[in-house]
Amino acid sequence: MSKEGLKLGKLTALDEAQAKYFEAVKEALKDPVCEEIPIEEALGRVLAADVKAGEDVPNFTRSTVDGYAVFGEETFGCSEENPVYLKLAGRVPMGEGTSLSLEKGQAVRVATGGMLPFKANAVVMIEHTELYGDTVEIKRAVAPGDNVIRKGQDVEAGETLLKRGHRLRTQDIGALAGIGRVWVSVTRKPVVGIISTGDEVIDAAKKPAIGQIRDMNSYGLVAEVIKANGDYRLYGIVEDEFNSLKKKMIKALAECDLVLLSGGSSVDVRDVAADVINDLGEPGVLIHGVAIKPGKPTILALVGEKPIIGLPGHPVSALVNYELFGLPVIRMLTGENVIQPLRGTLRARIGRNVARVANRAEFIRVTLREEAGEWWAVPVLGESGMISTMVKADGLIAIPMEKTGLEAGELVEVKLFD
Amino acid sequence: MSKEGLKLGKLTALDEAQAKYFEAVKEALKDPVCEEIPIEEALGRVLAADVKAGEDVPNFTRSTVDGYAVFGEETFGCSEENPVYLKLAGRVPMGEGTSLSLEKGQAVRVATGGMLPFKANAVVMIEHTELYGDTVEIKRAVAPGDNVIRKGQDVEAGETLLKRGHRLRTQDIGALAGIGRVWVSVTRKPVVGIISTGDEVIDAAKKPAIGQIRDMNSYGLVAEVIKANGDYRLYGIVEDEFNSLKKKMIKALAECDLVLLSGGSSVDVRDVAADVINDLGEPGVLIHGVAIKPGKPTILALVGEKPIIGLPGHPVSALVNYELFGLPVIRMLTGENVIQPLRGTLRARIGRNVARVANRAEFIRVTLREEAGEWWAVPVLGESGMISTMVKADGLIAIPMEKTGLEAGELVEVKLFD
Repeated sequence: MSKEGLKLGKLTALDEAQAKYFEAVKEALKDPVCEEIPIEEALGRVLAADVKAGEDVPNFTRSTVDGYAVFGEETFGCSEENPVYLKLAGRVPMGEGTSLSLEKGQAVRVATGGMLPFKANAVVMIEHTELYGDTVEIKRAVAPGDNVIRKGQDVEAGETLLKRGHRLRTQDIGALAGIGRVWVSVTRKPVVGIISTGDEVIDAAKKPAIGQIRDMNSYGLVAEVIKANGDYRLYGIVEDEFNSLKKKMIKALAECDLVLLSGGSSVDVRDVAADVINDLGEPGVLIHGVAIKPGKPTILALVGEKPIIGLPGHPVSALVNYELFGLPVIRMLTGENVIQPLRGTLRARIGRNVARVANRAEFIRVTLREEAGEWWAVPVLGESGMISTMVKADGLIAIPMEKTGLEAGELVEVKLFD
Repeated sequence: MSKEGLKLGKLTALDEAQAKYFEAVKEALKDPVCEEIPIEEALGRVLAADVKAGEDVPNFTRSTVDGYAVFGEETFGCSEENPVYLKLAGRVPMGEGTSLSLEKGQAVRVATGGMLPFKANAVVMIEHTELYGDTVEIKRAVAPGDNVIRKGQDVEAGETLLKRGHRLRTQDIGALAGIGRVWVSVTRKPVVGIISTGDEVIDAAKKPAIGQIRDMNSYGLVAEVIKANGDYRLYGIVEDEFNSLKKKMIKALAECDLVLLSGGSSVDVRDVAADVINDLGEPGVLIHGVAIKPGKPTILALVGEKPIIGLPGHPVSALVNYELFGLPVIRMLTGENVIQPLRGTLRARIGRNVARVANRAEFIRVTLREEAGEWWAVPVLGESGMISTMVKADGLIAIPMEKTGLEAGELVEVKLFD
């Protein structure tokens, strides 16, 4: 009797696999290399150091509206029917400082963004005033601080505006400009090596003979790495053989910060990949087989400080598992603080009953349609070897291991593809 | 009596402003220019033409598991206790075609991704079999079609895989590789001109004197344009004067597909921008003033087929209004089918009562924190002239015009920043 299959042994639960692997990667990682870049190129990059403001923003107390700078206290209780009258004591020109100092009973004209005269503590909007000669009629009360940004109220000199490890968003780029940091120190983009394996896999530019299939995973992963602000290196397709794979892996490990291996989903080939990784160095394969669908044969490994992730060969499985394991590791390599970022979902009702194989967290592709103001998520049927199921889908829903399935009409959270 | 302010007249409701402006832009737009690019660079780009598959994927019927190809019908009713025995008729080598044809009573060994012998219609997973010499014991039934991807089942020859106007996601790049389309025809990136105005605004690299403020909006908008897959051109800072602005606008309109003007939020300056736009050509300013907070003074205009958007000067207002008006226009310029894409949100409870000024749709910055398994959205206080409020925030919530406010504990949808 020849016993094949079942070589994976016990599958690790998804949460456990992520916790254990990310912890191991974190411990092994060296500090990321840094570089200075102009802020126009810094979107999505991760700060290599805290950013402190060198000066106050704004550097003067300014008005947020068009109107009259006043002492808020002098307008208390006034209204359309019961206005207060102040004496116009001047106008502040835009873009310049003013030496005016407000006296009791006075108002000074300021435009949006203009500097307030000294001592003034609020601005009445022009819409709530009338001007009669040099007398300003105030028809609405303002409290001290109203319609004003105090010197340093936006950003204070010496304040830490952004922390090391923060991934820069559009507003952060604007804020960096605001404090005059037009160059910024960020961590270098991690270099991600991509290797496809499989004797049936051929280059996407070639025409497949019967029995062959084009390499989709290399290109899907290239796109994912670009989206994650990484640099990629393509190592092409390697045959399912120990020495060929080992040679390619040595090269990729030398040149990259992370190696993504895809394919090799058949039992024998999985073993080749695991054997090669264990041969390359300690600690080697940490987890082999995760209780998720699609994606069971995933390999999570480390050789020295370099993470290696063996993704399943089926294109749907490869992309789903990349998101679960690859993307968080890329974020760790950039030194990002938040490894599992907040993620938007869309609430929808599931379009039909979904049964689930017990003891595996399952990810289901869905399309979305709106009906009577509600979103409905309709499962896309098809094997995880079919990329077209991902092309048709708008997002994924997860059925956690505890649940046995979903009932039609049940509310679910759809993770949208972007 | 001198009457200042209130020059905007009646504000247009947000929905109405978007509908009217987007319709006008759509009618004026020319077909986008196209270019051929390699798929490695195509993430986020928009297809210029339908993509049809030239051939079947896969081009042979393949197994999705390791196991034995069988006639599903011959396994009906079999189980661990009541197995079926089939004769091993051969093995299919990986990556090659096979000329084997299955006969009744036979099973053929196939690996994941391997070709099925002719006539076989299902595969039994190796885990549910035992091999005794050349006899295969089948311990679980499979239905015809189980564990198989038929020739052309993923993508059929002649099928339209992706439609013109589709924005390419990672899985679409994988699918293009799968059908051998390693170059693809996409629409050219729209060129977006960015102009800042304001006499108090200075270049971000310079040190502001009292009364001056650095240009944040140009850099924030650069980042937004990059994120939207556009190309940007910076035109620097223009003083609030008719002829200077007109000269700069003529240049920007000649070189760009869309012009974003920011600043000029004070009443007089808004008029300068509107006057210049109306002077440049028909139809000119279509909407001037939208009932939103932050963002009231927004200008939505067209000169010939070129859209021009005048964003408020306050940095928070500029970014919020860019998202509402600028981003959809960039998507239209790329020829994207879906102008308002599905967007993920996070459900949270609002952390405190929020009152709202009547008759304006209001966008509130919030930070998120988790408490006892629930998300709480806490409003970030501060003027829309303070970029730090956007830096601290994790997302935005909208209070529509019909509502007067939010009660502490009420459920809201947070649009996350990414």
